[in-house]
Amino acid sequence: MKRIYLDYNATTPLSDEVRAFYTAELMEFANGSSLHEDGRHAARKIDKARRQVAALVNARPEEIIFTSGGSESNNTVFNTMIEAAQKRGRKTVVTTAIEHPCVLESSRRLAESFGFQVIYLPVDAFGTVKMEEYRRALEKKPVLVSVMTANNEIGTIQDIKELCALAHQAGALFHTDAVQAAGKIPVDLRDWDVDYATFSAHKIYAPKGIGALYVKTGSPIEPLIRGGHQEHGIRAGTYNGPSIAAYGYAAELALKGLPEYEEHTRTLRNRLRDGLLKAIPNIKVNGHPEKVLPNTLDVSFPGAEGESILLHLDLLGVAVSTGSACASGSLEPSHVLVAAGLGPELAHGSIRFSFGKYNTLSDVYYILEKFPPVIERLRAMSTVGVS
Amino acid sequence: MKRIYLDYNATTPLSDEVRAFYTAELMEFANGSSLHEDGRHAARKIDKARRQVAALVNARPEEIIFTSGGSESNNTVFNTMIEAAQKRGRKTVVTTAIEHPCVLESSRRLAESFGFQVIYLPVDAFGTVKMEEYRRALEKKPVLVSVMTANNEIGTIQDIKELCALAHQAGALFHTDAVQAAGKIPVDLRDWDVDYATFSAHKIYAPKGIGALYVKTGSPIEPLIRGGHQEHGIRAGTYNGPSIAAYGYAAELALKGLPEYEEHTRTLRNRLRDGLLKAIPNIKVNGHPEKVLPNTLDVSFPGAEGESILLHLDLLGVAVSTGSACASGSLEPSHVLVAAGLGPELAHGSIRFSFGKYNTLSDVYYILEKFPPVIERLRAMSTVGVS
Repeated sequence: MKRIYLDYNATTPLSDEVRAFYTAELMEFANGSSLHEDGRHAARKIDKARRQVAALVNARPEEIIFTSGGSESNNTVFNTMIEAAQKRGRKTVVTTAIEHPCVLESSRRLAESFGFQVIYLPVDAFGTVKMEEYRRALEKKPVLVSVMTANNEIGTIQDIKELCALAHQAGALFHTDAVQAAGKIPVDLRDWDVDYATFSAHKIYAPKGIGALYVKTGSPIEPLIRGGHQEHGIRAGTYNGPSIAAYGYAAELALKGLPEYEEHTRTLRNRLRDGLLKAIPNIKVNGHPEKVLPNTLDVSFPGAEGESILLHLDLLGVAVSTGSACASGSLEPSHVLVAAGLGPELAHGSIRFSFGKYNTLSDVYYILEKFPPVIERLRAMSTVGVS
Repeated sequence: MKRIYLDYNATTPLSDEVRAFYTAELMEFANGSSLHEDGRHAARKIDKARRQVAALVNARPEEIIFTSGGSESNNTVFNTMIEAAQKRGRKTVVTTAIEHPCVLESSRRLAESFGFQVIYLPVDAFGTVKMEEYRRALEKKPVLVSVMTANNEIGTIQDIKELCALAHQAGALFHTDAVQAAGKIPVDLRDWDVDYATFSAHKIYAPKGIGALYVKTGSPIEPLIRGGHQEHGIRAGTYNGPSIAAYGYAAELALKGLPEYEEHTRTLRNRLRDGLLKAIPNIKVNGHPEKVLPNTLDVSFPGAEGESILLHLDLLGVAVSTGSACASGSLEPSHVLVAAGLGPELAHGSIRFSFGKYNTLSDVYYILEKFPPVIERLRAMSTVGVS
């Protein structure tokens, strides 16, 4: 059976170009810290990749630290606050109720093991941070504010530039988890003026196990993984040369291809959204109507259960998510949808379709043909809508 | 020019088998946490790899946590001690003066940011931990003892089983950095009874950016990278499925191939050692004469400077290291050789040859032909031996 992958926010395949490039790079293996020619050759490739990743997010190459991925990058920022709090005499962290689990869990450790106060900002029905609550939170003189650029589940995009300016006025450092934004919408770190930003390679058609942390020149940073002198002493560990090189190449392709990516995924996303709204009564599209990732469509199907919908789509050969993959296996409703004010029935019955460069209009046609009867059947069987 | 790679302790190439396997795996990309069939398929491959890695080191699969590599694994153990120290009312860590930089730096953070006392055990001229000092250190009631199984520079192997038994008698947890040991000598964690052990894939012909941490059932562990539920909540981050699968396959090959590996590298190493001793007067072989990795040969060439030797070998097409690659770029003498009591001249003039499965006897012949005149020339030019 043909498989249709609509879970690009969870992870992407390697693009054909990156796979060919990476496969060739796997012949190169020297340690980028070694002094011999093999090692110096590896080091030059890492330098090139650093420039390519920096260009995608408008940063200076020396501000890009390669890590093992988004979770490590986020954890590195939160771990830095242990020392930063001591030096700055501030022990409050402000974040949002809709962050990725790794931000929420990193915050929790600061609270539980180190006595921090953590404020989780509420969001409105579109998933946008509520500004009046944000201003009140800043009065607590936080050491750090962390707000994701775009949400992984509902795709809502925050105004990072404005949020960052307010945080800086209040003397706080500012971090944004931009894992879902890079390669999907323009990311301009120099304009936004954030202190830290988190990126992941496997969301932009590059290998898993590699990512980046942006650290603005002069902003404090403590290594999470200590040891060798790699990455200016900020991130130890043998350079993952082939993956770094492939990440750089993917970043270059993502930057060049951004307008086409946006138009392509938005067209398919809108076509599916409009088709579902027409074919299935009583559904709700979640997330912001305009300030949203072009590829992301989160829909609630009241009267049907999200995991059942997912499994039926899976049998049809369509791969989607309920909430984020990172929180899967749990029967809790999505913390993002709950924060956006959805009741249990809507939150439990939601599906995320996330498009990518290899989707086609025929994928959308297939879903619009096969999927509406599934919902009809599930609703007929469901007791939720009956009781 | 033919290049001869003699720096396998720094990193290995992918073996031909692993490269072919990994390249095929790169077509698979789903997120191992996703609920759809693509995700479940990825999860099954991760389970298989966990069994393969566990078999290499005689552990139970559920005791193997996949990480981004050895540095992360080591840092995870040290980071755990922040909470463990609070719970156990012990704030001393015992390690050795010859550990990998990531253990030394992790220890330093415990001292500087969290008020721990760190004891660095001295070693004898062979690089073996001095037992009387060890027993004295255990009287300080450490929360953790961390001793590497085999040293990356001189190859000396410690008696981990005995060291661990003594630590447990003193109520301490025990960690060993076994990055250089796995795949080179038998590693039997169940017999050694350690609480934690660190492993890396790129030392056994598998990709970079992947490694493992062994955590004995019941031993305390705090995640360093927090977030999703992956790895029983001990290590968050999207599964690096292809690299994990390749690591598992490499572990299986390493276990099967261990006797041949040991014999092959020992033969070449001994041949080079004996040839150098015969061809070049006044040199010193470092490390333990018997309790030593089969593939590792560290030699001091007094009257010549290590980096000069390295660069001349590089011009001959031979890739080696001075000290560890992780500490390269520094003009400090190797901390390992200094700890083993070598004076500055011997420590500065040392070269590590580390063999691997793709070396041949002709590599040794080439070096024995071309290299002795280099030392003669460097010694003639050197002022070190003259002043």
